[in-house]
Amino acid sequence: MRIVKLTKETTENILENMLKRSPTQYGTYEASVQEIIENVKTRKDAAVFEYTEKFDHAVLDASTVEVTQEEIDEAYNIVDPELIGVIRRCMKNIREFHEKQKQNSWFTSTENGTMLGQKLTALNRVGVYVPGGKAAYPSSVLMNILPAKVAGVKEICMTTPCGRDGKVNPVVLAAAKEAGADRVFKIGGAQAIAALAYGTESIPKVDKIVGPGNIYVALAKKAVYGNVSIDSIAGPSEILVLADETANPRFVAADLLSQAEHDELASAILITTSQELAEKVSEEVDGFLKVLSRSDIISKSLDNFGYILVTDSHQEAIDTVDAIAPEHLEIVTKNPFEDMMKVHNAGAIFLGENSSEPLGDYFAGPNHILPTNGTAKFFSPLSVDDFVKKSSIIYYSREALSEIHEDIESFAKSESLTAHANSIAVRFEGEE
Amino acid sequence: MRIVKLTKETTENILENMLKRSPTQYGTYEASVQEIIENVKTRKDAAVFEYTEKFDHAVLDASTVEVTQEEIDEAYNIVDPELIGVIRRCMKNIREFHEKQKQNSWFTSTENGTMLGQKLTALNRVGVYVPGGKAAYPSSVLMNILPAKVAGVKEICMTTPCGRDGKVNPVVLAAAKEAGADRVFKIGGAQAIAALAYGTESIPKVDKIVGPGNIYVALAKKAVYGNVSIDSIAGPSEILVLADETANPRFVAADLLSQAEHDELASAILITTSQELAEKVSEEVDGFLKVLSRSDIISKSLDNFGYILVTDSHQEAIDTVDAIAPEHLEIVTKNPFEDMMKVHNAGAIFLGENSSEPLGDYFAGPNHILPTNGTAKFFSPLSVDDFVKKSSIIYYSREALSEIHEDIESFAKSESLTAHANSIAVRFEGEE
Repeated sequence: MRIVKLTKETTENILENMLKRSPTQYGTYEASVQEIIENVKTRKDAAVFEYTEKFDHAVLDASTVEVTQEEIDEAYNIVDPELIGVIRRCMKNIREFHEKQKQNSWFTSTENGTMLGQKLTALNRVGVYVPGGKAAYPSSVLMNILPAKVAGVKEICMTTPCGRDGKVNPVVLAAAKEAGADRVFKIGGAQAIAALAYGTESIPKVDKIVGPGNIYVALAKKAVYGNVSIDSIAGPSEILVLADETANPRFVAADLLSQAEHDELASAILITTSQELAEKVSEEVDGFLKVLSRSDIISKSLDNFGYILVTDSHQEAIDTVDAIAPEHLEIVTKNPFEDMMKVHNAGAIFLGENSSEPLGDYFAGPNHILPTNGTAKFFSPLSVDDFVKKSSIIYYSREALSEIHEDIESFAKSESLTAHANSIAVRFEGEE
Repeated sequence: MRIVKLTKETTENILENMLKRSPTQYGTYEASVQEIIENVKTRKDAAVFEYTEKFDHAVLDASTVEVTQEEIDEAYNIVDPELIGVIRRCMKNIREFHEKQKQNSWFTSTENGTMLGQKLTALNRVGVYVPGGKAAYPSSVLMNILPAKVAGVKEICMTTPCGRDGKVNPVVLAAAKEAGADRVFKIGGAQAIAALAYGTESIPKVDKIVGPGNIYVALAKKAVYGNVSIDSIAGPSEILVLADETANPRFVAADLLSQAEHDELASAILITTSQELAEKVSEEVDGFLKVLSRSDIISKSLDNFGYILVTDSHQEAIDTVDAIAPEHLEIVTKNPFEDMMKVHNAGAIFLGENSSEPLGDYFAGPNHILPTNGTAKFFSPLSVDDFVKKSSIIYYSREALSEIHEDIESFAKSESLTAHANSIAVRFEGEE
């Protein structure tokens, strides 16, 4: 792995290189995504099935697009019961963590008769996108569906592309059933996002679409945003390890590679003040590359977006973490808790040498759907909050309004909104 | 005002008509907005100043684009001190309500050494858009800035279009200063959104852009979403009054008109089971129209998007509220609190005959920047939550990891992610 001495210039070059991975930079795909969306919006099912045949090479119709109970039963017959056991243990942790995110409706009141508050309501129907393609990720099924379930969403519609045989990966199906998907559709890509956003004869319109996907899915989600809500625009995965001379280089190397294996756009970065650690990690990476099954992908991702950055000071290292705003941050230093307090921008922060990133991907409980590509500066992990919305509640008694009505009228008049002022004034007509 | 008997068909027609007001339906403006954004992204200040001259007829340069302390002092000299007093009393309520929205970072722990949590961090720099043009809205300045301030945002950059003389409305400036804007820029439109999203020589790049604006602003916010975060895509304002025979028709009429006066795309709707109330409200509306200063705008907005809907049943009325998902909902019935409990979708809910909508626009405390045009099905009022983001925190001790490491390895292998499995396995090398 390349070792780079960090300077202001190298930081800027690296940040610029990283941003090339952003879905919003891929202008060339936008026209075709827009065409797919328009087509699904107007021709509905017919367009969805045509695109599924074209892109996924699967022939579907209104009677086969939705997964049946028989197909779910079949999936359970295929999947190793021990894996179901693992899935259930993971689900317990994920559910427990997300239960803690639940917020209450609340109000305040005063004795002269004012009540102000915030009422929380779960979304009615959400769409959950689960990628298919290169690999099947049942863990993403759990991470998408469980927060919605905990929030109390009434209907969860999952979509995931099927294979040429019109079948969905059985582990994905079993995970969907375990997590509580109400309906599962066998479609993927921009056509699936468009179908969920506008509704077709077979696929119901939803209020929000969540879940990561490829570049077409990301751009389609952005295009339908406003008509429905979305969680965020996901880019390729990334890990940043902040480590000092106390870190175990073999663990650090293994963790870097765990993200690099996702795809060729994934990014793995080590930032350290220790030149010695830098060199040892680089060696360990080379060693692992000889034995890991996905070393082709890993090598490409490391060549493109992998760095070992050596900094002069610990503060400089922290500042670089904030500038990169990584999806996953591991802090493997003398005082990981103290360092965590200094960091502003990261999707998930893993503390200490035993908190390997895959612990969070599957088991610990916090969500693994996280802001990528610098968006941890302003986006958050997928959470129960994504599946509820708020309404403000305002009650004023006659007494309470009469005490302050003149302030409202003055303010409204200063904005030349005389009908606003009138709506208050009319309530005090004929009074002094 | 037209009175319509509600049937399934009329509901659908009305919903379709309402959605015509959505910024995302205005395909024709997207190309010009995209051109403005690309131009500002590459030519920065130069492009911003060209567009400001073209659209706002104001000549700005790097030395005049930002509001100076002298200009703020000048604004305070012009603005009526009594209005400053009103603004301060409103601010007190707005701040108090938003303080209640603040959430804590939290964690859970177990004795064998696991800590899981959620760390909240305020956004570093946000951009606040305040419309200029037809009217100046100092209340929007307060509603935009105060939640950011309460959240602890480090730098708040406000932009608002200036007049031909290069000056910003003095009340807007004074409100910005009172609320705590750190910097104020005299630009508006899509060029302002692009400048905040990408940064120019004079205008810093922000993490999130909030605040309502015209169609160009709405489309520009959507276009830059992903590169920065945004609050939502705002459309024209709307009010829905749910009332029964106990409602005062004069108050209802006045409240309907208070939203209709915003612009010709605004929508004012009454839903009631009482034909008698429907007729009386219609009469009162006609009466007010003769005396209100903005009756031209009001008449057009009522013709386009104003309805008095009469339903057979109270439940049908509630269902129609949910289908419309209004920005502002007034409930003026025998049991407004009970009816509120039945409603799922509304930005802000005003209870009882004294809780007139303008009370919420200015004074009560809850935010007046609300989801419009049906988006209350999935969006929330602007809040402190908009200005913080979360990072998950994960710590596992050696002991805790050793108890469950096999589950993680099994799950990772089931997804064919062998480097994920390896990052856990490597920590137990040489052990049984």
